[in-house]
Amino acid sequence: MQPSAEQAAVLAANEAFYRAFATRDLAAMDRLWARAAEVACIHPGWIPCLGRTAVMASWTGILANPDAPNIRCLKAQASVYGTVGVVVCYEAIERNYLIATNLFIAEAGDWKLVHHQAGALAVAPPEPPEPAAPVPGRLH
Amino acid sequence: MQPSAEQAAVLAANEAFYRAFATRDLAAMDRLWARAAEVACIHPGWIPCLGRTAVMASWTGILANPDAPNIRCLKAQASVYGTVGVVVCYEAIERNYLIATNLFIAEAGDWKLVHHQAGALAVAPPEPPEPAAPVPGRLH
Repeated sequence: MQPSAEQAAVLAANEAFYRAFATRDLAAMDRLWARAAEVACIHPGWIPCLGRTAVMASWTGILANPDAPNIRCLKAQASVYGTVGVVVCYEAIERNYLIATNLFIAEAGDWKLVHHQAGALAVAPPEPPEPAAPVPGRLH
Repeated sequence: MQPSAEQAAVLAANEAFYRAFATRDLAAMDRLWARAAEVACIHPGWIPCLGRTAVMASWTGILANPDAPNIRCLKAQASVYGTVGVVVCYEAIERNYLIATNLFIAEAGDWKLVHHQAGALAVAPPEPPEPAAPVPGRLH
């Protein structure tokens, strides 16, 4: 089923989050998190970071780490409840998979993050989370 | 800081969720999950259960297990964004701790669950999550 326009906008904000994460772009990450609303962030295995100062301090540390592995977001699905968007997606970090919940609220005309929780998966995602590799010699 | 009336109502719904979980009350668990809205549930390490049928099938299995350990919710904190309530809390299962995100929406006059994610903690909660044991001989 095609996402609605609202779901598509939430998914675009979710993609911007993972782009900021993957490219170590702290300024973009800072712009993505809500300013006025309460925010919280639960990195895998961590106790929660509560409040914007703690959340951004955690990202400052994570994005400054030159050895941080690459991250990709896969199979994101969005639900919208009024002015809150909820995304469930897999995170691929090298050969490991996590599962994440990301919450966005409508703030100043944009969808802004208010909550992120990622946790380890004990099992592989149920189907190949990436498009199959192109077959040599086939154009499409 | 005291929770607002809305936060208190969301925290009460969160307590009802953990009471249904701890007492293996499938009927109560069923009443707690939203009927009309999209729902999702991410048990620790599992791939997501998407949709009410999959979510309730997961709870039917979990609550039917006579060997399931006891669960307690600790240090719950609620934020309310419009018609969506977000609770972050620890879950104590015997001597292990998890961290959870629970989302509630206002549906038919009640706060109903639309989303649950729990994941393992790699560290202990930052301070004793339970009240200190009473001092013998002290009445209060």
